[in-house]
Amino acid sequence: MTTKNTRIEHDLLGSMTLSNEHYYGIQTQRAIDNFQLSPNKLQDYPELIQALAMVKHACAQANEQLNLLSHEKAQAITSAAKQVIAGNFNDSFPIDMIQGGAGTSTNMNINEVIANIALTDMGHEKGQYQFMHPNSDVNMSQSTNDVYPSAVRLSILLKQAPLLAAVTELMDAFDNKAEQFSDIIKLARTQLQDAVPMTLGQEFKGFASTLKEDIRLLESMGELLKEVNLGGTAVGTGINTQKGYANLAVNALADITDMQFSLAEDLVEASSDMGAFVIYSATLKRLAIKLSKIANDLRLLSMGPRAGLSEINLPARQPGSSIMPGKVNPVIPEAVSQCAYQVTGNDVAVSMAAEAGQLQLNAMEPLIAVNILESMSILTKASTMFTKLCVQDISANEARCKDLLDNSLGLVTALNPYLGYEVSSQLAKTALTTNTSLIDLIREQQLLTEQQLTDIFQVSKMTQPS
Amino acid sequence: MTTKNTRIEHDLLGSMTLSNEHYYGIQTQRAIDNFQLSPNKLQDYPELIQALAMVKHACAQANEQLNLLSHEKAQAITSAAKQVIAGNFNDSFPIDMIQGGAGTSTNMNINEVIANIALTDMGHEKGQYQFMHPNSDVNMSQSTNDVYPSAVRLSILLKQAPLLAAVTELMDAFDNKAEQFSDIIKLARTQLQDAVPMTLGQEFKGFASTLKEDIRLLESMGELLKEVNLGGTAVGTGINTQKGYANLAVNALADITDMQFSLAEDLVEASSDMGAFVIYSATLKRLAIKLSKIANDLRLLSMGPRAGLSEINLPARQPGSSIMPGKVNPVIPEAVSQCAYQVTGNDVAVSMAAEAGQLQLNAMEPLIAVNILESMSILTKASTMFTKLCVQDISANEARCKDLLDNSLGLVTALNPYLGYEVSSQLAKTALTTNTSLIDLIREQQLLTEQQLTDIFQVSKMTQPS
Amino acid sequence: MTTKNTRIEHDLLGSMTLSNEHYYGIQTQRAIDNFQLSPNKLQDYPELIQALAMVKHACAQANEQLNLLSHEKAQAITSAAKQVIAGNFNDSFPIDMIQGGAGTSTNMNINEVIANIALTDMGHEKGQYQFMHPNSDVNMSQSTNDVYPSAVRLSILLKQAPLLAAVTELMDAFDNKAEQFSDIIKLARTQLQDAVPMTLGQEFKGFASTLKEDIRLLESMGELLKEVNLGGTAVGTGINTQKGYANLAVNALADITDMQFSLAEDLVEASSDMGAFVIYSATLKRLAIKLSKIANDLRLLSMGPRAGLSEINLPARQPGSSIMPGKVNPVIPEAVSQCAYQVTGNDVAVSMAAEAGQLQLNAMEPLIAVNILESMSILTKASTMFTKLCVQDISANEARCKDLLDNSLGLVTALNPYLGYEVSSQLAKTALTTNTSLIDLIREQQLLTEQQLTDIFQVSKMTQPS
Amino acid sequence: MTTKNTRIEHDLLGSMTLSNEHYYGIQTQRAIDNFQLSPNKLQDYPELIQALAMVKHACAQANEQLNLLSHEKAQAITSAAKQVIAGNFNDSFPIDMIQGGAGTSTNMNINEVIANIALTDMGHEKGQYQFMHPNSDVNMSQSTNDVYPSAVRLSILLKQAPLLAAVTELMDAFDNKAEQFSDIIKLARTQLQDAVPMTLGQEFKGFASTLKEDIRLLESMGELLKEVNLGGTAVGTGINTQKGYANLAVNALADITDMQFSLAEDLVEASSDMGAFVIYSATLKRLAIKLSKIANDLRLLSMGPRAGLSEINLPARQPGSSIMPGKVNPVIPEAVSQCAYQVTGNDVAVSMAAEAGQLQLNAMEPLIAVNILESMSILTKASTMFTKLCVQDISANEARCKDLLDNSLGLVTALNPYLGYEVSSQLAKTALTTNTSLIDLIREQQLLTEQQLTDIFQVSKMTQPS
Repeated sequence: MTTKNTRIEHDLLGSMTLSNEHYYGIQTQRAIDNFQLSPNKLQDYPELIQALAMVKHACAQANEQLNLLSHEKAQAITSAAKQVIAGNFNDSFPIDMIQGGAGTSTNMNINEVIANIALTDMGHEKGQYQFMHPNSDVNMSQSTNDVYPSAVRLSILLKQAPLLAAVTELMDAFDNKAEQFSDIIKLARTQLQDAVPMTLGQEFKGFASTLKEDIRLLESMGELLKEVNLGGTAVGTGINTQKGYANLAVNALADITDMQFSLAEDLVEASSDMGAFVIYSATLKRLAIKLSKIANDLRLLSMGPRAGLSEINLPARQPGSSIMPGKVNPVIPEAVSQCAYQVTGNDVAVSMAAEAGQLQLNAMEPLIAVNILESMSILTKASTMFTKLCVQDISANEARCKDLLDNSLGLVTALNPYLGYEVSSQLAKTALTTNTSLIDLIREQQLLTEQQLTDIFQVSKMTQPS
Repeated sequence: MTTKNTRIEHDLLGSMTLSNEHYYGIQTQRAIDNFQLSPNKLQDYPELIQALAMVKHACAQANEQLNLLSHEKAQAITSAAKQVIAGNFNDSFPIDMIQGGAGTSTNMNINEVIANIALTDMGHEKGQYQFMHPNSDVNMSQSTNDVYPSAVRLSILLKQAPLLAAVTELMDAFDNKAEQFSDIIKLARTQLQDAVPMTLGQEFKGFASTLKEDIRLLESMGELLKEVNLGGTAVGTGINTQKGYANLAVNALADITDMQFSLAEDLVEASSDMGAFVIYSATLKRLAIKLSKIANDLRLLSMGPRAGLSEINLPARQPGSSIMPGKVNPVIPEAVSQCAYQVTGNDVAVSMAAEAGQLQLNAMEPLIAVNILESMSILTKASTMFTKLCVQDISANEARCKDLLDNSLGLVTALNPYLGYEVSSQLAKTALTTNTSLIDLIREQQLLTEQQLTDIFQVSKMTQPS
Repeated sequence: MTTKNTRIEHDLLGSMTLSNEHYYGIQTQRAIDNFQLSPNKLQDYPELIQALAMVKHACAQANEQLNLLSHEKAQAITSAAKQVIAGNFNDSFPIDMIQGGAGTSTNMNINEVIANIALTDMGHEKGQYQFMHPNSDVNMSQSTNDVYPSAVRLSILLKQAPLLAAVTELMDAFDNKAEQFSDIIKLARTQLQDAVPMTLGQEFKGFASTLKEDIRLLESMGELLKEVNLGGTAVGTGINTQKGYANLAVNALADITDMQFSLAEDLVEASSDMGAFVIYSATLKRLAIKLSKIANDLRLLSMGPRAGLSEINLPARQPGSSIMPGKVNPVIPEAVSQCAYQVTGNDVAVSMAAEAGQLQLNAMEPLIAVNILESMSILTKASTMFTKLCVQDISANEARCKDLLDNSLGLVTALNPYLGYEVSSQLAKTALTTNTSLIDLIREQQLLTEQQLTDIFQVSKMTQPS
Repeated sequence: MTTKNTRIEHDLLGSMTLSNEHYYGIQTQRAIDNFQLSPNKLQDYPELIQALAMVKHACAQANEQLNLLSHEKAQAITSAAKQVIAGNFNDSFPIDMIQGGAGTSTNMNINEVIANIALTDMGHEKGQYQFMHPNSDVNMSQSTNDVYPSAVRLSILLKQAPLLAAVTELMDAFDNKAEQFSDIIKLARTQLQDAVPMTLGQEFKGFASTLKEDIRLLESMGELLKEVNLGGTAVGTGINTQKGYANLAVNALADITDMQFSLAEDLVEASSDMGAFVIYSATLKRLAIKLSKIANDLRLLSMGPRAGLSEINLPARQPGSSIMPGKVNPVIPEAVSQCAYQVTGNDVAVSMAAEAGQLQLNAMEPLIAVNILESMSILTKASTMFTKLCVQDISANEARCKDLLDNSLGLVTALNPYLGYEVSSQLAKTALTTNTSLIDLIREQQLLTEQQLTDIFQVSKMTQPS
């Protein structure tokens, strides 16, 4: 019995009254009631909503091609899916990202929303599922167990583009600085101890180079996500699908998304396997670890302003202390490192969830999904913050760099080929303990001619092979 | 120069126009602009807002007692703090929980909000800090480096009460089931292999007992959080405080919160040490691991409905499959385990952040705070969900329990004291390979009299020492 | 002053008396004295010793080609290196794998051993470094900071071959079982609940397929390790090398190892970057997680012998209990999972060590090395154990598989296309609550003809698309 | 059929020929054959061997008291146990610490060794188990499932003493340095930025204080390990024990070990629960994290020798570079941090193993045991190394400390109470941008009298509340 404002829906467990405002149905409502665990709701993950709708779109197309779904119904489903993809119905996905049921709630949420959009578009009332059924029609030839993993993979790929853009922008910012700092000679440090000369440009170029490798690796690991198990249905055996359906569905998905999706080789394996997620999460962790290392380096190099290395200046972004006037802290790199630790922790959660798979399914996949998507989000935002609020505006203290180098024993290594390791070692030791300069000692001991000294200690030559 | 709708504030870095709607000021605004990283905003953590306000209240009291703050100002601050504690200003804390600056933004957010509430209460305009300054007055004798850790500790303690209540409720639910199932004899399993008889009540009692230990441990580890470093200010040396201030502030906090706070023994150590957080997070992880183990046990015991152990039934909470009609899944225990994995991942993030402390401060403390608070939140909700939507409505399949036990070789262990380990082993092996029952074999081989058989195989006696 | 049995060596810090038995010298001895931390000594890692010697071999060749090293000295070094590669001097590497100094001790250990082998081969005494110096000659054009990472990479690649062989063998064992079990129909389970029919062969094929993917991924990630930074010396600037040296050294290494090594694009980046190790460790973790999931599945499927699923039998490898006669436990899969947890823990150690890099070097690389090598070792051994002591001898309980399937409601999904999801759901529910069979219910309600029933419920058809 | 040199033993799975040299028997041999996974053998863990023997001793005593075991047999068992405790038979425990079977192999190893020692002491041959049976006699009233967890707990407690001694020694070393450095004024740093004055003594005192807390916490968490489940046997129901046995056994263990052992409240819970291990491992991790933080601080403070902070000097322990003459690195702190990362990784392995418990047992307990024992070992050794090879010989660069402080703006905070936060901020900013000193600026702007300046800027007063 429905009034204008409400409707009654029923499922295996009974019936429920739903507000007619809602496009979602009884199974979504059960998920809302069951899972109130985390601050992360499906509606906060538009890429996953889009991905789910794209999968529904693709499957409807395949079903129509096999004459399992009438043209009218297929049309209604794909039209509804497009509206969801356009972002018009994000509010209709209020369920918690952490959920039992291996994603069934998420799959039913999209099934119900698409069914009800389609129904209203077709001139019916919401809930009149005899004309468009969330399971029999929208979910035709499908199971949560092939739809959900496929959609999660696609959602990661959709989020990969902005992540790579943000990291590329950061890489470019470091590249620009590398160029800008290419003539600034400074002391390199290994194990935090004075080492040999290098340029500040080389140091910053290293940051760019290391990010470049991660952009490549993310792209390459992203490819693993393009193998999907559509058509495997419940456990990978393809029960309730017709021969050919799987390929049709995957091809349709490739068309819709313009991504090279392919069918997994072994659909039984693909149904429960979380391997692609595990390695993708680890790749995000790798990026996180690198970002944190870079952030720490910037904090070390900018220690000061007076009682530290102070080789570079980070832009001031906020007063640094509620008690120490004038203090400015490296808040942006600090935030970057914290994001990195979160991503590393998330990766452990992903690993544990992946390990917990049992038999033909991994029930913990929703946790994997939310952690990867969240890690991507935080890395994207952290990279952009890093670029815009820090790296772009870093300046160098060229004089300070030079002073520290000149004052150091960092040139002693260049003596090795001339004086041998042992004599050079003694020189360094003597210089240090007597607080004198290397050159003075060499002159005093007449170890090298002035010409040799000039040749050897040409600092710029020390920053590359001779 | 301010108009009615806006005001201009300035700080070390320059000036900014702020909407007059906002109680927060320029430094909060800078934090909003700088940190847009995570879905977790300070306003979503009312316990932390309360804790911050309680600390401000306590410090104002101490400052007044030392005649550093006029009665009027102290009054205005404490009155403002109480309004914040009442929850009336949660919207004024929109900053990201992940932030650089070791919590400076959070501390300045509360300083600014309290200053502006006080100003308006005193009849001034927001921003007229000459009458009530966020730093000089509200933050008097304080530093982020003592206020923030103290408030985070307090916020954890505030959240501990509902967590313990939820876990206690879950423990009680298991206890009730233990009583209800106390006469149901079943087969115990070790390493998933048939073992010896026990009661289903004993099994459920074990779940209650193990949670009881965690309630105790959380309480005990919570005590470590009651040692605070108020009065240490910037680095623990107490710069800018008067002798006696620290104790006055801590005593005031104890009064206000009705918790036994004490001053840390070594304030320099306490300024940078994250030890109490590390072990508290680990204690949460321990609880998480136990919850997941219990959840997995329930899933194992309810495997079926027909082709698994099926010793218990979990209440159906939602249809289990978009493709398999009639399937009902253990969605609640699945969600519990996922929450546990998240908490374990969060603990790794906490550990890394704690390890990253440098010299007189740990700049990563905001990440520690958000992870512990988030883990507490998810564990509280997961425990309540577990109780209400699962444990309370578990039923036993008594006949199935008995069948599995009777059909098993689980009674053979009871023969050890009579026949010795080796003969018993051979009996078990023969029974298994010939698919016969133990009792038939014993009779056939005339190893025991009928009377002995009756005595030994009295199942209920096997569930306790003889 | 040396006697026959001892010699005195000196270094920057002073002098030391060494037994003349030892090929290693003073710096190795200092490392022995400094680091007594773990059970893992360099001598237990023959692949790393080999790799170090191969790198020394390659560098000597390059130095000779550039006329930096005389033919005689180069010859002596390469000859000594070959003897080390042959495994004749493993005992000369007694230092702890966990060491400060970023691998300097390890590099000096190989430098000293090669120098002393060369010296004795050349007719000199050990320690007469004026004729062959560990640093000036053996380490010519090198630094720990390029030698050590290059050697660690090579050692991983050397260990990769046996690892892949062991995993391939395991994959093959599963493939064989898949074939053997290809006609055994059974019930698939999702979320531990009865699902739909599949074959036991499909289940085991899935195990093979998932390992196949990891073999590919390990190979692919191994490629990342083939980029080395030889010639970068101290910090990547190539100080103390001649132009061309880097390429000569890398090419020589490629020749010696028959692996496609290439020079890193950015040697400064390559000096401190641990990225390739981080992702390789994660790939090992992925394999570990999969192995554990498979091991858990085998334990679930073999639960029993009488009161569990008991669909398969694992071979008995040892009596299972000191108290329960006749009990046999799934000890091999249990050990496999434990190995997997260790590898996952090791991966966290690797991540933290990688994150701790500072400026131009990562001083924690020795920990990364030992964890990756140890994870490889344990995974290799666990895979072989799994194959030989478990998988190869698994047998199926065909009748039990059939019984569980027949008795289940697992066929109801096949009714969807005929009766729709809702009617099918009601049938399943009724069958379950009234404890009757699906077919009886369908007949009773005359929902399908006998012919339809026969067609639909042809089990073998349900294990693939129709 | 046995010859003089061999004997034949049999078990459930068949028979095997064993060398008569060996005290262990067939089940140990099976474990040797089954598990060849890790470098960690039981014989490398003498505390665990001792603990196992102490448990056997205690159980035999309890069995004798209940007249289940003859005086002669009990005597023979306890005598044999004492010989094992004395360390005379460590070689008889060659099995891998990572093993399937939840410790059954370990329990059978001790059962067999004690039986055979007892047999030879009684004048029998090894293997004549009719006179002393490993299971029926040595393991009487016991199960692996109560013996193994109890012994692991005891072994941890046995290893706790040397760990606490090593950490105490380290704490004392820091305390000594704190006293020695108590008058050295220096600049404190928060977030690596110049902050306020403190003494180097305060800094080192902080290190001592934080370790003191960990000594306390380890002791307190150690108490949780004193609750054992002896008498629970297979699953905690006490099958095959007589009433009273459990208390007798626990009391005997308390006597033998002189530790306050008590019986777990719920033996069913105690059989499978890993909670005490989880929190103990986390406590070790907390110590590890603190050690790493301290090690990092020492590395930061000793950066240099010329181009870093250089406030302290670490003792030189080995030449620091194979290429850079004279370089000395902070190798000891670097090794400490690596140990800490290993312990943190081990903790993740422990967590995963604990989570994997199923029903009445946790089969992964051997991994938990080896990781905790290994973490204790590495922390003990790292602490001792840290004390002896680093902390004890740290010296301060007093002049450098003073220079850095004097040159800094670290005194500006002290102006807050006099000039207010805003004026002080502007002063700091001006001083920094114009590269002048604070005092000059104050004089120039006539903000304070000379007397005030003298009073305020009395550095030693700034290191404590005024």
